[in-house]
Amino acid sequence: MAASSFLTASHAQLARAISGRGTVAAPSQPDRLALSSGGHRLILRLNPKAAELKQRSRRFVKIRSAVIDTADGKPVTEELMERSVNTIRFLAVDAVEKANSGHPGLPMGCAPLGHILFDEFMRFNPKNPYWFNRDRFLLSAGHGCMLHYALLYLTGYDSVKDEDLKAFRQWQSKTPGHPESFETPGIEVTTGPLGQGIANAVGLALAEKHLAARFNKPDAEIIDHYTYVILGDGCQMEGVSNEACSLAGHWGLGKLIAFYDDNRITIDGDTEITFTEDVNARFEALGWHTIWVKNGNTGYNEIRAAIKEAKAVKDKPSLIKVTTTIGYGSPNKANSYSAHGSALGSEEVDATRKNLGWPYDPFHVPEDVKSHWSRHISNGAAHESEWNAKFAEYEKKHKEDATILKDIISGDLPAEWEKALPVYTPESPADATRNLSQQCLNALAKVLPGLIGGSADLASSNMTLLKMYSNFQNSTPQEKNIRFGVREHGMGAICNGIAHHSPGLIPYCATFFVFTDYMRASIRLAALSQARVIFVMTHDSIGLGEDGPTHQPIEHLMSFRMMPNILILRPADGNETAGAYKVAVLSQKRPSILALSRQKLPQLSGTSFEGVEKGGYIISDNSSDNKPDLILIGSGSELEIAAKAGEELRKDGKRVRVVSLVSWELFEEQSDDYKESVLPKAVSARISIEAGSTFGWEKYIGSKGKAIGIDRFGASAPAGKIYKEFGLTAENVIAAAKSL
Amino acid sequence: MAASSFLTASHAQLARAISGRGTVAAPSQPDRLALSSGGHRLILRLNPKAAELKQRSRRFVKIRSAVIDTADGKPVTEELMERSVNTIRFLAVDAVEKANSGHPGLPMGCAPLGHILFDEFMRFNPKNPYWFNRDRFLLSAGHGCMLHYALLYLTGYDSVKDEDLKAFRQWQSKTPGHPESFETPGIEVTTGPLGQGIANAVGLALAEKHLAARFNKPDAEIIDHYTYVILGDGCQMEGVSNEACSLAGHWGLGKLIAFYDDNRITIDGDTEITFTEDVNARFEALGWHTIWVKNGNTGYNEIRAAIKEAKAVKDKPSLIKVTTTIGYGSPNKANSYSAHGSALGSEEVDATRKNLGWPYDPFHVPEDVKSHWSRHISNGAAHESEWNAKFAEYEKKHKEDATILKDIISGDLPAEWEKALPVYTPESPADATRNLSQQCLNALAKVLPGLIGGSADLASSNMTLLKMYSNFQNSTPQEKNIRFGVREHGMGAICNGIAHHSPGLIPYCATFFVFTDYMRASIRLAALSQARVIFVMTHDSIGLGEDGPTHQPIEHLMSFRMMPNILILRPADGNETAGAYKVAVLSQKRPSILALSRQKLPQLSGTSFEGVEKGGYIISDNSSDNKPDLILIGSGSELEIAAKAGEELRKDGKRVRVVSLVSWELFEEQSDDYKESVLPKAVSARISIEAGSTFGWEKYIGSKGKAIGIDRFGASAPAGKIYKEFGLTAENVIAAAKSL
Repeated sequence: MAASSFLTASHAQLARAISGRGTVAAPSQPDRLALSSGGHRLILRLNPKAAELKQRSRRFVKIRSAVIDTADGKPVTEELMERSVNTIRFLAVDAVEKANSGHPGLPMGCAPLGHILFDEFMRFNPKNPYWFNRDRFLLSAGHGCMLHYALLYLTGYDSVKDEDLKAFRQWQSKTPGHPESFETPGIEVTTGPLGQGIANAVGLALAEKHLAARFNKPDAEIIDHYTYVILGDGCQMEGVSNEACSLAGHWGLGKLIAFYDDNRITIDGDTEITFTEDVNARFEALGWHTIWVKNGNTGYNEIRAAIKEAKAVKDKPSLIKVTTTIGYGSPNKANSYSAHGSALGSEEVDATRKNLGWPYDPFHVPEDVKSHWSRHISNGAAHESEWNAKFAEYEKKHKEDATILKDIISGDLPAEWEKALPVYTPESPADATRNLSQQCLNALAKVLPGLIGGSADLASSNMTLLKMYSNFQNSTPQEKNIRFGVREHGMGAICNGIAHHSPGLIPYCATFFVFTDYMRASIRLAALSQARVIFVMTHDSIGLGEDGPTHQPIEHLMSFRMMPNILILRPADGNETAGAYKVAVLSQKRPSILALSRQKLPQLSGTSFEGVEKGGYIISDNSSDNKPDLILIGSGSELEIAAKAGEELRKDGKRVRVVSLVSWELFEEQSDDYKESVLPKAVSARISIEAGSTFGWEKYIGSKGKAIGIDRFGASAPAGKIYKEFGLTAENVIAAAKSL
Repeated sequence: MAASSFLTASHAQLARAISGRGTVAAPSQPDRLALSSGGHRLILRLNPKAAELKQRSRRFVKIRSAVIDTADGKPVTEELMERSVNTIRFLAVDAVEKANSGHPGLPMGCAPLGHILFDEFMRFNPKNPYWFNRDRFLLSAGHGCMLHYALLYLTGYDSVKDEDLKAFRQWQSKTPGHPESFETPGIEVTTGPLGQGIANAVGLALAEKHLAARFNKPDAEIIDHYTYVILGDGCQMEGVSNEACSLAGHWGLGKLIAFYDDNRITIDGDTEITFTEDVNARFEALGWHTIWVKNGNTGYNEIRAAIKEAKAVKDKPSLIKVTTTIGYGSPNKANSYSAHGSALGSEEVDATRKNLGWPYDPFHVPEDVKSHWSRHISNGAAHESEWNAKFAEYEKKHKEDATILKDIISGDLPAEWEKALPVYTPESPADATRNLSQQCLNALAKVLPGLIGGSADLASSNMTLLKMYSNFQNSTPQEKNIRFGVREHGMGAICNGIAHHSPGLIPYCATFFVFTDYMRASIRLAALSQARVIFVMTHDSIGLGEDGPTHQPIEHLMSFRMMPNILILRPADGNETAGAYKVAVLSQKRPSILALSRQKLPQLSGTSFEGVEKGGYIISDNSSDNKPDLILIGSGSELEIAAKAGEELRKDGKRVRVVSLVSWELFEEQSDDYKESVLPKAVSARISIEAGSTFGWEKYIGSKGKAIGIDRFGASAPAGKIYKEFGLTAENVIAAAKSL
């Protein structure tokens, strides 16, 4: 008989009443059974401070050692199950306590769910965290990361050892304060900022569905994994999660299973004060299958049944609302915000040990628990080798597909892929860089099998459609044009998820540059987590004209130039756009933002594909010995103006150099010699021109130079008029030059 | 009999089939009836290109001149109603055509709704757009602004005259490409970036509910207005709208009535490709009352009935889904994305004129239509004078409340309010600036009747609770602590709405500084639309410690310093925090960001309340005649380090000046003389220290100075450890000083 049958919670209130549960383990080391001498029961203790708890029913709970019918067929006694769940709880409690910092509440509440998911359902290989066909697990409520670290530890990942748990939240540890995919193998994505993880999960599930549709054959289901994610009340409140989940429903991502940790406690207290919507009803409206596990604390069978049900629903993503008690087991802090985000304190840790019948020292894992989990190392190896055998068969029958898939798995680029990029001459027709970008994207689509992406409802403005493909949709998941709708933030986070699915997937996404403001959190996470996402940002200045200041970026270029680990590329014409794509594709650990014009620009003489890789380079100069009278620096759509002004000034006998500064980050990475060859220190007469904030240009123009730009909001008028009124003209550059 | 009875659309598909409707007006100028010689009917023409339209039913529509039962009792014939609706449509069509830029589709589809709402329901005074108790109307789908401009014009607002319509989207016109509250009286908020307007509307409705609860008396309902908003598919997809609408449902904002323009067309095409959720079901889950007007094109009575129903539901906000046809009346572009965002083109404009029986020249308003709308000037004056009389009565009976309310209406601050701010001495206890901020907020709450705000679920971390008040909730709307939940973006946009409700309301909102990334679009709109919102941003650096790089701002300070029209204040201690609040409150046309520390900081000697107003000032100096050997510049939590290093260097005989640069924007606004007195050009040995990006510091340290900061992502570890590892120490400043 299952343990949960003692607790048949018929409705939420009852389930939530169970905020602690006395247990006594029949330990494998009887000499430690100090706490259980009073008999095999402990009284449930509720948080005496929380008024709303007072009227809740109290229960006595008895433990039996019946064998549980687990999902994976591995027998486990109730007793061992309970001890294992408590092991997870106390690893979290102890690590947070040692760090005196962290979030014990979620791991204590979600330990049963975490246990059942990792122990009974998930397929993974601890010794190869990057095994391609693994089930993915994401903790969108990233603050609860000790849950994930404990599970990685128990299942045998090398990335989280005993000493790593003890170094939780310490300098250079593998167990930072929030899950960081770039620090800890086994962590799929970087979470903490709420709502991102669930949106990443949508991206991972999209990638699975897409790749499965492209590569699976009737005789070989080579791609077949689930994406599991735990999200909390905070994630549910964030708009980004609604955006991504609306898309997940639309796309019918049946292999996405989200657990909503319904503990109804946030930092500010009970969710009653701010979050009273009907979450499952909202998800049904979004096209999801929903389930409610009313007793997530001890209803193991309920949890198992829910996961089985969710897996069986293939045409819709599933949301399993799991009602839990935050800080479960802590007699005085469970079900309150004080269990959320701080160490319990030694006194309460002791009380929790007593309450849950846990006689062990900090960080102790009982031998039987250790032994129970140990099978995952061999199981994982078996999963992978089975898959390898399957893939070998596949490769024999479907050689071409296998080759392509291997590149997606490894991240290797096909030989000479960059030769597919278009080449332009000054005679090529003038065009907007957003159109030139489309030429590049379509050229790359032919040679890069992992390129996939789209726009937030601006495909025809951002020029991002891949013409050889149709739309990625529920019924056509093998296609590559993703329609994100007007959901910039969700789009960014979904693309991060795609990028983290496989090294060879190259997601791109697009909107107007100004709307990076909507998705900045996901762009930053791309940068932090080293996700190669290409952000195609068109309408990159006042040059968009009549839409006015709400749509005109001003500070955006600079504001990203100071963000760590992201490339900002602002190409001026066709060759620079092609060069920008080359750099972006090659930046495997760094996202790129391409800032592109709405307006038509000429193909300039002197620009080059190769120049872009240096970030800054000379496009024209009539001086010799690196001593021009004047250096004009431009980027993107204003390079044309700099070039024009340069020509005019040269007619007056001036020795003028024109520099394209297409990427500050790349230029900074060049050698001092190279930088000196482009911007010699001795030349202080420098003028920059860029249709954006002048803030920061001092770096390149020095204290004597002049920055022509825009330090106010834009205006609604035809683009040419605004350029003129704002002084972004060759005449103004020439006047500035004369004043220097 | 009502016109709509000819079109009893029983379900959505039918309603949506009506993409154009032939009408023949019986005009007041019979000599212009050129188009109707063939009889009093015109065939409905559908877009022949759209495949899905082919099978839709075609209808012949006959017009009768029965008198319509309008909501405000003013009789209007069907014929006049139709002409008036078409007037709105063609003002939009003609203005977009003249500008050759803009969005005709929404105004054409929503003209009936706009007509009924403005003509029959709304209370406003065109000659005083700022009349306090007016109903508010917001166009969240801001691209359709010609609808709003046409309505302002017809109702008699001075801000939109005939010549303004003709200058649509032109330089310095009153009719910019998206609604700008700071340009056009009658426009309540600045919209265009999708989803913002509906969230602003939640803020306006919150303000109404709050003020009504505070000031209304059983004998005097002095505050009593509705907030109406039109949002489109795009707004619905944006996460920010779900965040704000979840709160609106939670708060039971019964006077918020949102019209969802369900035209099912976005820029990328039919919403079928990306937006298939059940919107009304989602809103029901969020706690809203929902209604569906299935024929928004011609179902005038349906629209009227829906608004009446929504007004009658007092305990919940209402969402009225109005199914319309984008570009209604355009025979070849209706119901397609090509009507969304570009001029129809002269040929199609002609065809539309024919189709809708509109024989007039561009921008023509038939006399009977003009005459019909003209009553709003006198009606508006009457509304206001009635209210004034009511207020005079109120003032007699409730003098104290009336005085406070008048300040909220006018924006006048009480005399000497700033004296309430706390004063500190170097002996005052060390404290985190977030705690000092709470002291300021609580001090201000006693003297500023319009101060209201809260945190995105971090009240106990941001330290933003006003202790003398309870929570603003559905049942306690008179209270002032707003619990926003984990909804930063919604929070920002709601605060913008509150700020735009009344000049004397001073909303503040809070989260961790890094999460400005989630709400950047709303912060930018605060800046653009000149909304005095105080953004209380705590945990402003790596000083937050263990939470790690996902939570540690790096580029954020600088990225806001380059945003136009917003103040960034990073106080170092108590007096600077108090000074920052003074500046923020006085900045009536400019929002402020206060960047505040999590960690404890000493009360420094030399800092001052007054210094903050200058943005940068000397806190200590042992040199004379404005010629120190070295200038150390710090802000916020690093000013302490600069001060310490300065002391040490002076012990070595150096003449060292320490400058607090608490606000770059304010410092830049000082006279050249003042700036020279703080940062004399002759002194090139300068070191800045700030726990953030060094990008941009060249402005103040010049090419020879040294910037100590952080140009990588942060790390998870105790704060002291990270400061040391990142070199943010007095020792490092001293070493840098020696190297200069």
